Amino acid sequence: MKAISKLSREPGLVVTDVPAPVCGPADVLIKVKHAGLCGTDMHIADWDAWARGRIHPPLVLGHEFAGEIVEVGDHVTAFKTGELVNAEGHIICDHCRQCRMGDGHICRNTSIIGVDRDGAFTDLIAMPATNVMPLNGIPTSVGAIMDPLGNAFHTVLSTEISGNSVLVIGCGPIGCWAVGIAKAAGAKQVIASDVQGRRLKLAKAMGADVALNPMEVDLNESIKDLTEGEGMDVVCEMSGHPTAINQAFKAARFGGKVQLLGLPSGEVPINLSNDVIFKGLTLYGVIGRRMYETWHKMQSFLSSGLLDPTPVITHTFKLDQIDEALEAIRSGEAGKVILEIES
Amino acid sequence: MKAISKLSREPGLVVTDVPAPVCGPADVLIKVKHAGLCGTDMHIADWDAWARGRIHPPLVLGHEFAGEIVEVGDHVTAFKTGELVNAEGHIICDHCRQCRMGDGHICRNTSIIGVDRDGAFTDLIAMPATNVMPLNGIPTSVGAIMDPLGNAFHTVLSTEISGNSVLVIGCGPIGCWAVGIAKAAGAKQVIASDVQGRRLKLAKAMGADVALNPMEVDLNESIKDLTEGEGMDVVCEMSGHPTAINQAFKAARFGGKVQLLGLPSGEVPINLSNDVIFKGLTLYGVIGRRMYETWHKMQSFLSSGLLDPTPVITHTFKLDQIDEALEAIRSGEAGKVILEIES
Amino acid sequence: MKAISKLSREPGLVVTDVPAPVCGPADVLIKVKHAGLCGTDMHIADWDAWARGRIHPPLVLGHEFAGEIVEVGDHVTAFKTGELVNAEGHIICDHCRQCRMGDGHICRNTSIIGVDRDGAFTDLIAMPATNVMPLNGIPTSVGAIMDPLGNAFHTVLSTEISGNSVLVIGCGPIGCWAVGIAKAAGAKQVIASDVQGRRLKLAKAMGADVALNPMEVDLNESIKDLTEGEGMDVVCEMSGHPTAINQAFKAARFGGKVQLLGLPSGEVPINLSNDVIFKGLTLYGVIGRRMYETWHKMQSFLSSGLLDPTPVITHTFKLDQIDEALEAIRSGEAGKVILEIES
Amino acid sequence: MKAISKLSREPGLVVTDVPAPVCGPADVLIKVKHAGLCGTDMHIADWDAWARGRIHPPLVLGHEFAGEIVEVGDHVTAFKTGELVNAEGHIICDHCRQCRMGDGHICRNTSIIGVDRDGAFTDLIAMPATNVMPLNGIPTSVGAIMDPLGNAFHTVLSTEISGNSVLVIGCGPIGCWAVGIAKAAGAKQVIASDVQGRRLKLAKAMGADVALNPMEVDLNESIKDLTEGEGMDVVCEMSGHPTAINQAFKAARFGGKVQLLGLPSGEVPINLSNDVIFKGLTLYGVIGRRMYETWHKMQSFLSSGLLDPTPVITHTFKLDQIDEALEAIRSGEAGKVILEIES
Repeated sequence: MKAISKLSREPGLVVTDVPAPVCGPADVLIKVKHAGLCGTDMHIADWDAWARGRIHPPLVLGHEFAGEIVEVGDHVTAFKTGELVNAEGHIICDHCRQCRMGDGHICRNTSIIGVDRDGAFTDLIAMPATNVMPLNGIPTSVGAIMDPLGNAFHTVLSTEISGNSVLVIGCGPIGCWAVGIAKAAGAKQVIASDVQGRRLKLAKAMGADVALNPMEVDLNESIKDLTEGEGMDVVCEMSGHPTAINQAFKAARFGGKVQLLGLPSGEVPINLSNDVIFKGLTLYGVIGRRMYETWHKMQSFLSSGLLDPTPVITHTFKLDQIDEALEAIRSGEAGKVILEIES
Repeated sequence: MKAISKLSREPGLVVTDVPAPVCGPADVLIKVKHAGLCGTDMHIADWDAWARGRIHPPLVLGHEFAGEIVEVGDHVTAFKTGELVNAEGHIICDHCRQCRMGDGHICRNTSIIGVDRDGAFTDLIAMPATNVMPLNGIPTSVGAIMDPLGNAFHTVLSTEISGNSVLVIGCGPIGCWAVGIAKAAGAKQVIASDVQGRRLKLAKAMGADVALNPMEVDLNESIKDLTEGEGMDVVCEMSGHPTAINQAFKAARFGGKVQLLGLPSGEVPINLSNDVIFKGLTLYGVIGRRMYETWHKMQSFLSSGLLDPTPVITHTFKLDQIDEALEAIRSGEAGKVILEIES
Repeated sequence: MKAISKLSREPGLVVTDVPAPVCGPADVLIKVKHAGLCGTDMHIADWDAWARGRIHPPLVLGHEFAGEIVEVGDHVTAFKTGELVNAEGHIICDHCRQCRMGDGHICRNTSIIGVDRDGAFTDLIAMPATNVMPLNGIPTSVGAIMDPLGNAFHTVLSTEISGNSVLVIGCGPIGCWAVGIAKAAGAKQVIASDVQGRRLKLAKAMGADVALNPMEVDLNESIKDLTEGEGMDVVCEMSGHPTAINQAFKAARFGGKVQLLGLPSGEVPINLSNDVIFKGLTLYGVIGRRMYETWHKMQSFLSSGLLDPTPVITHTFKLDQIDEALEAIRSGEAGKVILEIES
Repeated sequence: MKAISKLSREPGLVVTDVPAPVCGPADVLIKVKHAGLCGTDMHIADWDAWARGRIHPPLVLGHEFAGEIVEVGDHVTAFKTGELVNAEGHIICDHCRQCRMGDGHICRNTSIIGVDRDGAFTDLIAMPATNVMPLNGIPTSVGAIMDPLGNAFHTVLSTEISGNSVLVIGCGPIGCWAVGIAKAAGAKQVIASDVQGRRLKLAKAMGADVALNPMEVDLNESIKDLTEGEGMDVVCEMSGHPTAINQAFKAARFGGKVQLLGLPSGEVPINLSNDVIFKGLTLYGVIGRRMYETWHKMQSFLSSGLLDPTPVITHTFKLDQIDEALEAIRSGEAGKVILEIES
């Protein structure tokens, strides 16, 4: 079967032929219908420092996907063939302290599909049944983006939103979804911030009440004006930019919450005394999706129509158009880019 | 000044003349513009067992109100005359364990206006400044109902709502507001239950997805059908009816939350083993409003337009129409009844 | 191998020969060293109404145990032979809403060893590896009681204990452990209540500051005296007796927590208005152990020496002394009774 | 009356005569018996940059004290003369968002005694009655240190301690008390870290299981050894040292909590991606004491004997020995230094 692979320790991705995976007794075999392209895939394509330290070619890429079950392992009773499903791509150990305490999303023995083992940019993937979630009527094009959408849900819903004001800094796909989730969860005011007008437009389409470009306005002055000097109840930092991270702390009200999802490179200088301790802030490092509270919650929002994440999906490509897909992301013109996979 | 009073230990209310209150150094004096009539006022009018045990005539009634500050005590700096405000009617001791631990709403030394001391069904009322909240643009007709609306907020928002299913049993004014709050806070599905069609219509107007009359359908079978056998994440019991209370426990899903606000008379037989313990339920007794988290949250919802509570206000009377006002409530035709007070 | 079994639908237990279980690919096979006898086993022996509705003979009893791994399934990497372990006896589905939301202890598809499938009162038992916990130096005689001990941990630690006052009503083994856990977790005052002096003595041995017999003193008056009229922060109701349950509500302070573990038969009349709603109580139905937060927490307490549960273990019998063991429990003389199992 | 004062904008403190304060209608007048000296007093004495920006001489210093009520304001009913009390030194506005939401400790309109208005290093101080707490048998020498002790309680008890491992970095008085509180609240393991042997000795006296000097050992390696590679559940950073802050993040386990109380000067470079976000940490900026949850909890621990804070009090001076008292702190030989005040 065709697959988007990393074959050697150098930049670039290729479409190759790989053998079909075997369905173990505790697995289901899934025919991939849609898959999502993500920043991680870009890092692997570009063979940057992170990729060089983590990736061991040959590797089939892809950790965001949805499809149809075509085979069910001998010991699996929860699924049957024909069901449309997606899956959490973090395969965890179930036995470490984090797993045992309900924090499997930070299991230290995690193996990620498309990163540590072969992934979903291909026809078939075998997944442990416990990682698989039924789509319950959600289309596979949406099912394929529920991994990054889950990051947005984890970020927003791990703090109190109803009646609160929310600032989202960084309006890539995850940031734009965070805007929509905050609105659906009853935020009284959602402010979006990004340096690109196109992204701010998408944030507005997802429901942002106000969209601010910190290259054009003084972000913290604007926020003071918009909140009667109070600051934001919740700040979701999705950009990873050092300046933005410090803006996040300054924008939060006394006693506010700052959710940190964006990943800065290197050290970030922070004025902890004035910006965090004197203000009594709570900071939370967001990684992955809570397994499986986030997935369940996400299904509730999607199935009930509380959230429509599709405006953020701007491009769909075929598997062998991977170069065009990467180019769309690099151009800065794309929101979320997905692949439609036909065998 | 004119006031609706209880003058003697027997049924009935009268409009009398009472002296204007004095504004103490820590008080503000408020000219009442609107006031809300409530079940408690009915109990006092009817002179039932509860009233006979609690009320000491002569007493000016009224604990729900909003108006304009006309005098500010010498030690009060937070307010000035001309401001539109309302107030929490529970005057608490600030020193007991509950007050010190942030649970002032269950202060055991509480004195309630219109119950334990003169109330707001008159021209002027003096309130401790710490009990007073600025209306910040909310009209006094809405400000006057923020006491019972606060009960609804306390009930709904003291559990997790976003993406969850919510059942409201009992669709009087507080129940109908609970429906609207749950929708505004991102509930995925809100079911309302009441034995009166008129109330169910109001619940639908406040956003209920489904309205069920347990006299016409089997409530628990309907809920099973509507939730794929799962049951409700959250049940708000606002009726106080023993049958409804037991339905509440049965309607909740395993691990669900039951918020108990409705007050049954006497003992209620409950199958604790099957309906509470085996199901791992959490029950919470809701009394009053959290001081002042609930008030602040309520202002956020009202000021931002997340909630419009006005469809529930069906009747407005003048102060000397108290008999017509009581009759409107007794008839079962009314939602929330308020008084417009002109000096 | 020898096993304590229920062979027919009538009172009594017998020691029979049963075939050794097979170790599936996701299982470990455990040689049982110690096992705990529990009220559930008594119900099955006595063939009461509950047992008649739930149990399908033939069945090997026993759901509390610890032992040594003697075989490891092909797909299991977390364990190796020779390890001393115990196991959660609730085998859950991993896919229902409760399981997915981290509430596996109330999975509606639970199968319990010794109840719904063959149990541990025998030489060998095969358990899914995900149910198995390493003992990390805890002896098997203690490992064998970590199922009911876990009920006590779940009851006590699902509310705030440090610096709080705690009342434990019902001082069977689980109640006595609850006393010890509350003390270890920094309760400022632990009061134990039971109608049997022997049990109160055990509660004192586990650290109760005060032991009260409600047959001899007025429980609620005593509690008022002991708490300056305030009432208890936390009440753990472990008896299931209707009178005790109502005492629990009355003993709790305004805003207190009542943890309900004891299982009453039939309906219990409760004065919800006065005893729960006006007081702003929170009630929590405790069933099983949180999987696996409770187990992990329990290991921390046991491994670090914070808790010594052994004073509650009063009797140890061999497998073929099952009649003597049941008799010890029935006599009311026993605390926790365990079996030592030798092949 | 005699008072320790700052009279001019330059280094140094003097003992002067000041007029006795007047007891307002909502105040109580307290005869000071004991008072605590604190780092803040040192900053004011030394007239450092912070002091120059905040302090407006003339000012009576002192924000930690306990004493006897000698006069009660006309509107105060909760206290009577002769009662021994202490008081929260943060006088808050009661009306801002933080105050209304139960976060008065971060009220933006706070006025602190001994900093923004005259303080307690003198014979008499008038305090608003709502700031005053009865000592209930706690001696005034201990009552006088409940302000900084409250910082330690706020730090430790705003996260889960029972059964958890706790690292305290920085063993000044507040750090040493944090050690004792963690032990009393059922921590399974408390590790203390400081660069001074004398302080580590005090931490051991307060119950630390292990005391580490990061000048002598590799702190993070030691912690790995002590926690089987897992890291600490809770880290309390009380030093404010940039290196220690980064050690705090590294020492925390995946999913751990870091409580930040120590105040670094200037910006601290932090590796947010690796040390906070990938690890899923929660950080909390600790300032002041929760009003009045922390005070209530503290009284429970002290009154019940769960905590004895007195080993940390190493020196007691008279009011006119202020120079000797400051010298004791500067020498690094002192734990907590208090003043005994006689009129």
